Amino acid sequence: MIRHNLRRARNIHGQALSITRQDRERLNDHTGKVIWLTGLSGSGKSTLANALEQELHTQGKRTYLLDGDNIRQGLNKDLAFTDADRVENIRRIAEVAKLMMDAGLIVMTAFISPFRQEREMARQLIGTENFIEVFVDTPLEVCEQRDPKGLYKKARNGEIPNMTGINSPYEAPTSPDIRFTPSSSVREILGYFDD
Amino acid sequence: MIRHNLRRARNIHGQALSITRQDRERLNDHTGKVIWLTGLSGSGKSTLANALEQELHTQGKRTYLLDGDNIRQGLNKDLAFTDADRVENIRRIAEVAKLMMDAGLIVMTAFISPFRQEREMARQLIGTENFIEVFVDTPLEVCEQRDPKGLYKKARNGEIPNMTGINSPYEAPTSPDIRFTPSSSVREILGYFDD
Repeated sequence: MIRHNLRRARNIHGQALSITRQDRERLNDHTGKVIWLTGLSGSGKSTLANALEQELHTQGKRTYLLDGDNIRQGLNKDLAFTDADRVENIRRIAEVAKLMMDAGLIVMTAFISPFRQEREMARQLIGTENFIEVFVDTPLEVCEQRDPKGLYKKARNGEIPNMTGINSPYEAPTSPDIRFTPSSSVREILGYFDD
Repeated sequence: MIRHNLRRARNIHGQALSITRQDRERLNDHTGKVIWLTGLSGSGKSTLANALEQELHTQGKRTYLLDGDNIRQGLNKDLAFTDADRVENIRRIAEVAKLMMDAGLIVMTAFISPFRQEREMARQLIGTENFIEVFVDTPLEVCEQRDPKGLYKKARNGEIPNMTGINSPYEAPTSPDIRFTPSSSVREILGYFDD
């Protein structure tokens, strides 16, 4: 029985066969992708990612959202906010997104990811053809007015040393695949998945 | 349009709605699980995992296999084989398996994972109700005879300092969910997924 079953996992040349990304994409009836959202705190990354995931899920697509809630308390809980740790934070997120894409999923990532070099590293790692960079382009004034976590207020009071947009730079994408402004529509992104 | 779309991502109480594990499991028509394979080098973990994934995939189930090939060159390429790094290696694998299970997948992990304490950490992190420990119980003599990567030979020649089973301990599970011996059948494991 075991012999029978294990023989099925080998091809005629005796090499072990594996289920591939293509097999999983065929089963899902769509390709795996990574939608990389970048933007200031309060720009609406998580709200947009959730809206997008809802639409894709309703269409029967297999999705997952990586964000601070499920990454910072888990996989990356050993990392702080030093420069080296911020780079490692993005590297691990990119690696996990890549694995999930290989599993056939449409993966959304919602992190500020302020540095151009880190986003480029993620793009190279995941593969340009799989990577959709979405710049959630909400003006700083609007983000600071929303201030959903009260972080801008704290930063202005000097309580947060490395707040992106206040005392740490945000390097806006120069040529994102999609620029999402407060007047944009989720449909503009959904157009990427009509395959 | 944006207002319309984003409103759809909130419920009547104004809270943002997210796609949950349960939503994804409903779409997949099966629950997410982690099948944790443990056993000596050459015991047949990868072969068994591949056979298992083929069967589950043929049944239309959403699966993924985490193994040395896709973890050691990627997410964990910064880790060596010190005790601390081996613990961190297993911790990250467990965290990624947990995320993928949350994405609705049946995740298989194929790593020697020789230490009881690490496997227990993985079980706690993933949740006992989601975690299926499979002890691939192939005798050392058989593994050493197979020696698919030539590692046992090297270890006997003193070229590998921390070879599990030779000069580093393997702590066999005392009560695995499944004990898979050379006379076992893949069907014994498949029984766990008839839901």
